[in-house]
Amino acid sequence: MILEHIGIAVSDIETSLKHFRTLFGAEPYKTEEVASEGVRTYFFDAGGTKIELLESLHPSSPIARFLEKRGPGLHHLAFSSDNLEADCQRLTDAGYRILNDGPKRGADGKDIFFVHPSDTAGVLTEFCMAVR
Amino acid sequence: MILEHIGIAVSDIETSLKHFRTLFGAEPYKTEEVASEGVRTYFFDAGGTKIELLESLHPSSPIARFLEKRGPGLHHLAFSSDNLEADCQRLTDAGYRILNDGPKRGADGKDIFFVHPSDTAGVLTEFCMAVR
Repeated sequence: MILEHIGIAVSDIETSLKHFRTLFGAEPYKTEEVASEGVRTYFFDAGGTKIELLESLHPSSPIARFLEKRGPGLHHLAFSSDNLEADCQRLTDAGYRILNDGPKRGADGKDIFFVHPSDTAGVLTEFCMAVR
Repeated sequence: MILEHIGIAVSDIETSLKHFRTLFGAEPYKTEEVASEGVRTYFFDAGGTKIELLESLHPSSPIARFLEKRGPGLHHLAFSSDNLEADCQRLTDAGYRILNDGPKRGADGKDIFFVHPSDTAGVLTEFCMAVR
């Protein structure tokens, strides 16, 4: 399995960007708004993987609800898939609940789906595949 | 910055291992007990980085306290350091609180230190360096 990225929910993007600068001397190499999710994303290179900061754009976004419930912090892990539809079907058949009824367009030019965190020992897990 | 590993707190190691098998077809390549932390660790290869499952070995371990407070899930991010003492001093000088007063021996043949999560926007952050 290849970890494509880690999502981090942030409540104050300026403070979080300052931390990345101070702790690592790092700047985001890309930012992108994902209107369907109500977030702005900030990507950092972290060696073989990426860190994606998730800033909520409105109070009813999934990230806003996460922040209200848990506060800022680690949000999800995303793994690369070679065949998103097949992985989605395989996990559905194995009894895992898939959020949003299956794959949809995500950030960074990828289609994605999420597995319900209650089915994965508390770790919200995304599978993602670059759109061809 | 290079993400060396991601730590995940697990409350039921058998269930978590089953998830890794089902979701990814993956098995841990190493397990190790870290007596000083009261944990057993299980390492998975995740491409350029690693996933470390953290099983508490007694009810007063840091992982047991985390599970009690937050439940199972994502616990910390660990980044590679080329000079652990220098990074520790640099972050102390920048006003970050370092847990346990500085570097100590961790899992996987590494010296490590943690930055207080209240100082890093809710993300418990480890710096680690292979013991030479």
